[in-house]
Amino acid sequence: MSDVSMPPQFPIAQRYAGVTSTAVRDLLDVLSQGNVISFAGGAPAAEFFAAEDIRACFDWVFANRPGKALQYSSTPGEPELREQAARRISRSIPTTPDQIQVTTGSQEAIYLVGNAMLNPGDVVLVERPTYLAAVQAFASSGARMVGIPSDDDGARPDALEDLIREHNPKFVYLIPTFQNPSGVCMPLSRREEIAEVLRRTGTILVEDDPYGELRFAGEFIPQISALPGLAHQSLLLNSISKIMAPGIRVGWIRGEGPIMNTLSIAKEAVGLHSSVVDQLAVARYLEAYDVDAHIRTVVEVYKQRRDGMRRELLEILPEGATVTSPDGGMFLWAALGNGIDTTALLPIAVQEGVAFVPGESFYAHDPDRSTMRLSYVTNPPEVISEGLQRLSRALDRWHG
Amino acid sequence: MSDVSMPPQFPIAQRYAGVTSTAVRDLLDVLSQGNVISFAGGAPAAEFFAAEDIRACFDWVFANRPGKALQYSSTPGEPELREQAARRISRSIPTTPDQIQVTTGSQEAIYLVGNAMLNPGDVVLVERPTYLAAVQAFASSGARMVGIPSDDDGARPDALEDLIREHNPKFVYLIPTFQNPSGVCMPLSRREEIAEVLRRTGTILVEDDPYGELRFAGEFIPQISALPGLAHQSLLLNSISKIMAPGIRVGWIRGEGPIMNTLSIAKEAVGLHSSVVDQLAVARYLEAYDVDAHIRTVVEVYKQRRDGMRRELLEILPEGATVTSPDGGMFLWAALGNGIDTTALLPIAVQEGVAFVPGESFYAHDPDRSTMRLSYVTNPPEVISEGLQRLSRALDRWHG
Repeated sequence: MSDVSMPPQFPIAQRYAGVTSTAVRDLLDVLSQGNVISFAGGAPAAEFFAAEDIRACFDWVFANRPGKALQYSSTPGEPELREQAARRISRSIPTTPDQIQVTTGSQEAIYLVGNAMLNPGDVVLVERPTYLAAVQAFASSGARMVGIPSDDDGARPDALEDLIREHNPKFVYLIPTFQNPSGVCMPLSRREEIAEVLRRTGTILVEDDPYGELRFAGEFIPQISALPGLAHQSLLLNSISKIMAPGIRVGWIRGEGPIMNTLSIAKEAVGLHSSVVDQLAVARYLEAYDVDAHIRTVVEVYKQRRDGMRRELLEILPEGATVTSPDGGMFLWAALGNGIDTTALLPIAVQEGVAFVPGESFYAHDPDRSTMRLSYVTNPPEVISEGLQRLSRALDRWHG
Repeated sequence: MSDVSMPPQFPIAQRYAGVTSTAVRDLLDVLSQGNVISFAGGAPAAEFFAAEDIRACFDWVFANRPGKALQYSSTPGEPELREQAARRISRSIPTTPDQIQVTTGSQEAIYLVGNAMLNPGDVVLVERPTYLAAVQAFASSGARMVGIPSDDDGARPDALEDLIREHNPKFVYLIPTFQNPSGVCMPLSRREEIAEVLRRTGTILVEDDPYGELRFAGEFIPQISALPGLAHQSLLLNSISKIMAPGIRVGWIRGEGPIMNTLSIAKEAVGLHSSVVDQLAVARYLEAYDVDAHIRTVVEVYKQRRDGMRRELLEILPEGATVTSPDGGMFLWAALGNGIDTTALLPIAVQEGVAFVPGESFYAHDPDRSTMRLSYVTNPPEVISEGLQRLSRALDRWHG
C-alpha cells in the first residue's frame, strides 16, 4: 500500500539507474544559453544550409506525392530514398536498395545495431577516444565498451587482434574517416591491416561514416567496409546530417543478409518507420539537386575555419599542448597537458562565455583528462576568435 | 578462425532470437500488394488528409524558421510543439509544456516507456486483447505480458487488483478509449473503479490514447489519467497520426516528475531528437488551423463507414458471430465462432483479394482464434462492399 500523501515512484530500468544527465544533455543545455559561444556541439554552419532548395524539395513532395507522404509506410524505408542511398554508397561499395535500412538520423542507426546484436554483458570494441553518444547507446543494451589503443593513424591492428582474442566482442565500432572526436582519418594501409584482422578473426565491423564526405584536403580513401571481403561482415552507417541538415533526422544502415531483417524488426519495435515526408524530401534532394556541389562549397568554408581556429588555438594554449590538423570533418582535438583537467575547466569557461566538450566523455575507460573537442564549423571566424579569447581568459583563471 | 568461404554470422540479441517476421510486417507486406483490399492496417482515409493545409505548414516553417528547422535541437522537443500538446491535453488534464516529451510517432512513445522502466523478467499487465505492437515493444525490453480479463466495459477492476497483487507489475498498459483492437470505450464508472485500484495499490498507468478524438457518438469521457490523483502516477501517450497524418511521425508522452528526465535520456540514446521540421510543421498546424473542425469532418465519414461495414459484415458472417459497434476509433472486432481459425483463414482471404488482422496477434496469451480486426476507415464504401464479398467467398471456401 502506498501512502496517499506520497506519489508512487515510477520504476527505472537498470540501464538508466543513476543516470540523471548525460554529456550530450549538458551540451545541449549550454547551447541553449544565448550568451555562450559554443564549440561544443557538432552543429553544421546554419548559414550554409541549402534552405531554399530543401524547402523546394518538401514542397515538391506535397505537390507530387501527398497521399504517400502522409500515410503509414513500410519499416525498411521509402524505395526512392533507399535507391538514392544505394547509389551514393555504390561509388565505393556495390549496393542495392534492399541493402539499405532507413533510420531517423544516424543516432537511431547506432542504437538499432546495438539493440539488434547486443545482450547484457557483451563486449564492444571502440576507439580511444570514441563518439560519446555511441557509448551511451550501446550501454543502454547492457554492453561493456573496451577501448582499442591507438596511434596517430587510428586504432592499432595488433592491439585490436589481442583484444578480439581476449574479449570475443560482438562487434568493433569504428569511425575511420575524420573520427569523432579526434579528427583522425585512418590511412589506407592501416585500413587494410584492420580489415585483415577482422577477416581473419571473423569479427563484425560497425563502420560509422557521418563525416566521410566533409573532406577538404587529400584524396578519398575507401571505407573499411569497401575493402575486399569486408562488405558482407560490416554494417555501414551514413547520415544526411552533415551533408544536408541534421534537423531532418534521416540516416541509413548499409548491410547484407539476414541481419537486415533483424534490424528492420528492431526498427519496427522502436518506431515503426521514419517520417515519410522527410524521407521523400531527402530522396528528392539527392536525386534532383547537386549535393556534391553543395558539399564542395561547405567544405571550403570549413577548411578556412579549421585553419583559423587551429592557428589561434595554438596561440592561447600552454606550451606542450597539441592540436590535431584534420583533413576534413568538424572537430579539432586538443591535448592541453600541464595537469589541466578539462572537465573542471568547463564551468570556468562557461562563466567566461565559451563552451567545448571535455575529452573525458569520449573515453570508454581511463580518460586523458587534459583533452577537449572543439567544433570549428559552427561559428564564423570573428566568433571563433572571440570564443578563443574567452577560453584564454578561462585558462588564465585556471592557472591563476 | 572462420572459414574464408563462409561469411561470418552477425550476432542476434536474445530479444530477437528466432523472430524472423512479425504480424505488423506481414500486414505491411500484404498492404503493398495492390490487388488486395486491406481492412488490416490502421491507416486513415488518405483522401481526407488536409494535404494542402499541411503543405502550407511545412512551407511556413521554411519561410519563417529555416535555420531552426534544419539544425540540431534538444531531446524533449520543440517548445512550440510542447506548448500545443500541453494545450490540447489541458482540456482534461492541466499540463505544462515541460510535462511533454515529443516522440517520433506513438510507437516510439510506447517503446520509450518500456525501455525506461522495464528490466528482463518484469511483468506488464495489458488488456485482452491489446495492441500487438505494444506487446512487441515491451517484449523487446524482456518483459512478460499478462492479460487482464475483461468484459464489455473493458478490463475488470477485480481481476486487475488480483493480478497486481500476484505479479507486482512495473505498470499497467491500457487503451481505454476506442481500444485497439476491440473498439471498446471504457465507461466513466469503470474508469473510476480502475483508477481506485491503481491509486490503492500505487500502480503506474501507461494510458495510450491515439483514438480518443475520433469520437462520432456519445459524450467525451475523461482519460483515466484525468481522474483525481491519477495524473502523477500515469504516462499519457498521444499521437497526431489519427487526427492529422501518420506519415509525419509525431507523438508525445505526458507525465510528471523525474520519470520525464529518464524518458528524455532514453530518447537521446534511441535517436537524439525527433525531426525538427516535422515538429515545427505540426505545431504550426495545431496553432493556426482548426484541427477540431477537420476531425469533425473525418469522423462523420468514419461513422458512415462503420455503419456500412458493420451491416454488411453481419450479413456475411456465420450465425452466432458477433461484431462490436464502437462509438469511435477505427476498428470493428468480430468473433466468428463456429470453430473458425482466422489465422488459417487469412491466406485464403488474401487469395480472394482481401486482408484483415487475425485476432490471435492481439493476445498476450490464450488467444481467441476465431476473432479478427477490421478497419472501417481506410476504404470508401464501395471498396468495403467489394472487400466483404471477397471475405464471404473466403468463408465459403473455409466451410466447404
